[in-house]
Amino acid sequence: MTIKSFHPPQRVLMGPGPSDVSARVLEAMSRPTLGHLDPVFVDMMDEMKTLLKFAFQTKNELTMPVSAPGSAGMETCFVNLVEPGDKVIVCQNGVFGGRMKENVERCGGIAVMVQDEWGRAVNPQKLEDALKANPDAKIVAFVHAETSTGARSDVKTLVGIAHNYNCLTIVDAVTSLGGIPVKVDEWSIDATYSGTQKCLSCTPGLSPVSFNSNAQEKIKNRQSKVQSWFMDLNLVMGYWGGTTKRAYHHTAPINALYGLHEALVILQEEGLENAWARHQKNHLALRAGLEAMGLKFVVPEAERLPQLNAISIPEGVDEAAVRAILLSDYQLEIGAGLGAMAGKVWRIGLMGYASNPRNVLLCLNALDDALGRLKAPITRGVAVDAANKQLAG
Amino acid sequence: MTIKSFHPPQRVLMGPGPSDVSARVLEAMSRPTLGHLDPVFVDMMDEMKTLLKFAFQTKNELTMPVSAPGSAGMETCFVNLVEPGDKVIVCQNGVFGGRMKENVERCGGIAVMVQDEWGRAVNPQKLEDALKANPDAKIVAFVHAETSTGARSDVKTLVGIAHNYNCLTIVDAVTSLGGIPVKVDEWSIDATYSGTQKCLSCTPGLSPVSFNSNAQEKIKNRQSKVQSWFMDLNLVMGYWGGTTKRAYHHTAPINALYGLHEALVILQEEGLENAWARHQKNHLALRAGLEAMGLKFVVPEAERLPQLNAISIPEGVDEAAVRAILLSDYQLEIGAGLGAMAGKVWRIGLMGYASNPRNVLLCLNALDDALGRLKAPITRGVAVDAANKQLAG
Repeated sequence: MTIKSFHPPQRVLMGPGPSDVSARVLEAMSRPTLGHLDPVFVDMMDEMKTLLKFAFQTKNELTMPVSAPGSAGMETCFVNLVEPGDKVIVCQNGVFGGRMKENVERCGGIAVMVQDEWGRAVNPQKLEDALKANPDAKIVAFVHAETSTGARSDVKTLVGIAHNYNCLTIVDAVTSLGGIPVKVDEWSIDATYSGTQKCLSCTPGLSPVSFNSNAQEKIKNRQSKVQSWFMDLNLVMGYWGGTTKRAYHHTAPINALYGLHEALVILQEEGLENAWARHQKNHLALRAGLEAMGLKFVVPEAERLPQLNAISIPEGVDEAAVRAILLSDYQLEIGAGLGAMAGKVWRIGLMGYASNPRNVLLCLNALDDALGRLKAPITRGVAVDAANKQLAG
Repeated sequence: MTIKSFHPPQRVLMGPGPSDVSARVLEAMSRPTLGHLDPVFVDMMDEMKTLLKFAFQTKNELTMPVSAPGSAGMETCFVNLVEPGDKVIVCQNGVFGGRMKENVERCGGIAVMVQDEWGRAVNPQKLEDALKANPDAKIVAFVHAETSTGARSDVKTLVGIAHNYNCLTIVDAVTSLGGIPVKVDEWSIDATYSGTQKCLSCTPGLSPVSFNSNAQEKIKNRQSKVQSWFMDLNLVMGYWGGTTKRAYHHTAPINALYGLHEALVILQEEGLENAWARHQKNHLALRAGLEAMGLKFVVPEAERLPQLNAISIPEGVDEAAVRAILLSDYQLEIGAGLGAMAGKVWRIGLMGYASNPRNVLLCLNALDDALGRLKAPITRGVAVDAANKQLAG
């Protein structure tokens, strides 16, 4: 056995995440490693918390990155907030609501599922009905931006309803943070988690989370220990928390945190509103091009995410063959369908650094070419023309 | 608020980990991000498994890096192998045995603690006595290289005893892997976990694990679901496992994995035996210098780790002041004591890339200087002279 150094090709990442990563972020990750209790690193952790509070639009002191990917962020929320026997209403409109159910049940909780159509927003009326029927529910959980379908739900309304029934809320903001407004304080979200590899355009591996005082109260008053030692916020906070001396809990992923810090500095430089506007603008250009090619969105316009465009596969097209052409001839990754949507949709991401006109045009041109070669009824050139017109307008 | 890019100083990391990271590893982490299902990345995952099997000296198919730090690797072993009601013998001779107890109990298991003196190896006779007294025990867990004390235990003997009583074994190899022999197959270890930031000299954030067929059998035949969704090996293996098509479970920390791949390529280039010999040689040089200064090791020679040197603080010395001088004047980090050893010892790491003569001499010189300035009774220069003599010999 002799294995050599690994030199990956330079792809354009327009799938459901990871998204393109800025060279600034990649370079930051290669800076010298510090000890996890080095005073210089500890100062950086304070900056990280400030930057994450900015991204989440919150004053929550308990705001930090979990040292593992988004699914560990999800689990951090559930294992800390759900106690055995707790009833949790989970609104499911895609793959990730199903993962929430798994989390609730593995914590010994009772998941009451509110099913919505995949590709649609969570229906507030259905949530209200479920809360009326389950007066003993303690938590409501749902996904803000469903990565499997591209649907956007109305967080403010859903959280408001949950609070009317004295429930805490867990909101999945994995794909929303940095791409569309996520206003933790204004919307009174109790607990939320995100990922670094979507609209923050950092490499995968960390999960920013934020908990308000009501969520903290619930954690402090638990009758049982948190079942995960690694994710127990009572312990993690000894390292990331407050004003006291930081104590070792686990060894933080130092260089990955450098990358996230840089990604958040970039977001701060651009400004949240500008980032949201950029995501919307490039989405509209992509939409113009896709519609000019006769391709159809899965999600109705009013419920559509700008950063995750789920498109129905045209009849008779071999979807995997199209993705293979994009990857081999254009170094371009778009996403396949996930779960019930497998084989039925493509998921085109325009997330973070990847949300730019160059990528919009590359993707349209590549799709146009691939569909043409596969003899799908596409008129060459119309897509790029339509997108350019939208970008100019 | 305006937060700027973070530019860490260049430290020399001679604490209990993270250790110095090779520029090759840091550069690898800054290579272009790929999608977690990209065929090129999937090929790299296969190489990663081959490299980890080499490092662990095993043919175990279930050998891979957990996407989170070593403490999550520990938890991965416990949540998958321990079922509610299972009795687990935990041999504790430092901080990390205590963490094992926490893990057992949070899984609903019963931890039977076998206490050894901190700074000593695990006593095989005590384990045997505990197994005799607890014929219903199902698992034996212990730490190979105790990072909190620098003690090395005899894995082969302890695993042999456990197997005589039909127990599976969980072995913590966080600080041992790459620095001293870890022979998973030859020693018949059932489940083990390590960290990347010790003798593999990678950045922190990943935890290599390996499970043999007996451990896999136990996981497959569980009566209850694994309580962690993120760490459930039945699910993780859909992504990392075997020969079948890889399915999405969580988004792998792509760039961190590039770093680990490169660190393992470096280990392969050097050869395991050479790496072990290098750790031993530099340890002996450090020892010669420290003893010439009159400093004393915590652990008896026969049970001492070459990569983690725990030294008693000389009487009357302000240990934190010494570390502060090392950090500010020499950019040198050594470790403080942990747990019951806090304030009583320094922990000097010579791990992986950091285990080299330059670091030995730097550390001795810096300690000599700091202790001299703090008016401890050290004769200047004797330490470096003694180490040089050992290196030459």
